[in-house]
Amino acid sequence: MKYQVIFHIDEEPKWGLLLGNVENLLKASGDELPVIEVLANGEAVLEYKLREADSMKAGRIEALHRQGVTFAACQNAMKANGLTKEMLMGFVDTVPAGVLELVERQSLGYAYIKP
Amino acid sequence: MKYQVIFHIDEEPKWGLLLGNVENLLKASGDELPVIEVLANGEAVLEYKLREADSMKAGRIEALHRQGVTFAACQNAMKANGLTKEMLMGFVDTVPAGVLELVERQSLGYAYIKP
Amino acid sequence: MKYQVIFHIDEEPKWGLLLGNVENLLKASGDELPVIEVLANGEAVLEYKLREADSMKAGRIEALHRQGVTFAACQNAMKANGLTKEMLMGFVDTVPAGVLELVERQSLGYAYIKP
Repeated sequence: MKYQVIFHIDEEPKWGLLLGNVENLLKASGDELPVIEVLANGEAVLEYKLREADSMKAGRIEALHRQGVTFAACQNAMKANGLTKEMLMGFVDTVPAGVLELVERQSLGYAYIKP
Repeated sequence: MKYQVIFHIDEEPKWGLLLGNVENLLKASGDELPVIEVLANGEAVLEYKLREADSMKAGRIEALHRQGVTFAACQNAMKANGLTKEMLMGFVDTVPAGVLELVERQSLGYAYIKP
Repeated sequence: MKYQVIFHIDEEPKWGLLLGNVENLLKASGDELPVIEVLANGEAVLEYKLREADSMKAGRIEALHRQGVTFAACQNAMKANGLTKEMLMGFVDTVPAGVLELVERQSLGYAYIKP
């Protein structure tokens, strides 16, 4: 069975931990790669910002995206943090309400992990 | 399908984030309102205290309660924090063990979210 | 039905809260004890260290283990924190990737709790 996982992050300082978690999950999964989505809300959406993004972490996010990981941002959190879609790395998906995304994915059988 | 969600909070400073999450979930849900329960254990139960509750947050909690959100407090945490049921906002439910509530709800199909 | 629960911890300061949660869950469960696993990754694996472990917490972990609770450590986190299996309390299980363990357990119907 192909696993499905949604990672939830709402605090900026947790990005390092979260990226390590996702990298380890991919490494441990062998051929049968799980479906992985990272959903950021709260202040954590700031990490997706194009220009000011920490270059090390932005590079790791991009590498994971190239391996098939979906990165999503909550539009409520973007608004609260003064961000528009154009200000984010181009591959980041936006969803109207991050919290609804977390509920919908779990209802589809995704495991929930909050680093 | 009607979604069911349990929010878990055990740290006082997370109440602002949690309430925003619940408000956003209600706004995003349209006509088909999800079943939402907020379960507080640890020091987070102090936010339910009647007199010393931060009036802004207490007002938001009450407004959400009027929209059908259930707020519950762990009796173990209440005891550890010197609280009796009479000291809490009147509509707060108490459960013998918050952690068992979290398990039971998930076994009934509730999504789990920890802001 | 026998409940199954996986607790996730990745921050050292959360151990007190987590152990209280597990103790309360056991007390509240009566005769039908749930299957409980505690999965530590990140810096939280340091609490399993044999010699330098805080004696109070180590005692509580051992007591819970004797009541049937499984304690597991992520090998990625152990490596990152300079730990080998020999340095941990003897009953601690190690898993190649803690995050995969969290996914697998949830896919088997375990509830997820992150104190």
